[in-house]
Amino acid sequence: MVIELYELVGRDDRRFSPYCWRTRMGLEHKGLDYKTIPVRFTDKDLIAFSGQGRIPVIKDGEMVVSDSWAIAEYLEQTYGDRPALFGGETGHGLAQFLNVWADRSLHSALIRLVIADILDHLDEADRDYFAESRTEWFGKPPREIQTRSEEDLKAFRQVVSMIRAALGDRQFLSGAAPAYGDYIVFGAFGWARSISDFPLLSEDDDVYAWRARMMDLFDGMAGKAVGYDV
Amino acid sequence: MVIELYELVGRDDRRFSPYCWRTRMGLEHKGLDYKTIPVRFTDKDLIAFSGQGRIPVIKDGEMVVSDSWAIAEYLEQTYGDRPALFGGETGHGLAQFLNVWADRSLHSALIRLVIADILDHLDEADRDYFAESRTEWFGKPPREIQTRSEEDLKAFRQVVSMIRAALGDRQFLSGAAPAYGDYIVFGAFGWARSISDFPLLSEDDDVYAWRARMMDLFDGMAGKAVGYDV
Repeated sequence: MVIELYELVGRDDRRFSPYCWRTRMGLEHKGLDYKTIPVRFTDKDLIAFSGQGRIPVIKDGEMVVSDSWAIAEYLEQTYGDRPALFGGETGHGLAQFLNVWADRSLHSALIRLVIADILDHLDEADRDYFAESRTEWFGKPPREIQTRSEEDLKAFRQVVSMIRAALGDRQFLSGAAPAYGDYIVFGAFGWARSISDFPLLSEDDDVYAWRARMMDLFDGMAGKAVGYDV
Repeated sequence: MVIELYELVGRDDRRFSPYCWRTRMGLEHKGLDYKTIPVRFTDKDLIAFSGQGRIPVIKDGEMVVSDSWAIAEYLEQTYGDRPALFGGETGHGLAQFLNVWADRSLHSALIRLVIADILDHLDEADRDYFAESRTEWFGKPPREIQTRSEEDLKAFRQVVSMIRAALGDRQFLSGAAPAYGDYIVFGAFGWARSISDFPLLSEDDDVYAWRARMMDLFDGMAGKAVGYDV
């Protein structure tokens, strides 16, 4: 049975949700058959069956799961005979910490650098919704947020420096092989490159090399996705 | 053979190093025999044998290891037949992320709330060293840093809210049982209660309950240490 993944999409098939990237990488990690159903902000009726309004949503037979963290837990439990996303209970607990950190610290530093680029890469139908909801949220419009001030760049460099320090001399955050902790953090970069040509990482950065390894996984799935080569 | 743990100490035997707390909890977790050797800032000659000047240092027979993270890795590798600190490679990798986060985000938020309290609980011999080195570091003296401004309290509440979210409905950050990830975060609280009566957590906070569980571990080892009941 093919799992359906309902995934946020911009124009030109750009997949810019960090949460959907987590789920997509998790499905690949488990080696599960899936197909993605693109959903624009204004297409929310497509996921009404999930009883809530946020993506990602997966439909696995009769089972419907929303929220990327809940989906990862569902996949790990349901497909326990396949490669582990968490590597046991300790890894599961610590991945949840990383999940919280990425949602709060990593994403909040990144959004300020690319929010106007998101707007520019949305399908026409979604632009007003995005501009208005984010202006309300942040108290000013996307183009006034995305100034890439020295302060905003410094905040982003700080979160990247934490990723770099946590990598140490390992290939992946999770060790010699990638696991869900890597997908959590990669979500932010999969998002950014889909809609922004701003170079977030310098080529000599260990985090750049890690991101390149992530894009090469699963036959280069993430690297082949529509996006900028930065 | 008894492992020697060289541990930073203030007056009245107060153990206020978060890094030493990580190591001490790790030694207990492994069920290893150890004794602690108290070291004041001005007693650094006691650890000269380690070839560097920072605590914790452990001496396990002929083996000398410094740096709490390196010590945890050493203990896990050397005493692999005892309860796991990391729970496998994924847990090891993700614990390193938590280690980086605690060092940078948790500690930097906490130090601003208790730095003058540290000064007040140091042995007389250490006070000038601490006051001068920290004044140089922060650009102002401890009593001017520890104002507990609304901004500083908010920053600390934010890091606590991340711990709370990561706990979810689990007993420990690492799952149903504690592991090194919990000891990393507990280090900050073991430090704070040893020298400060400032209530960092409210009693109805899940993080307060978690901290209480941490203090109860190993026959209440951490709870019995000299400190304030806050």
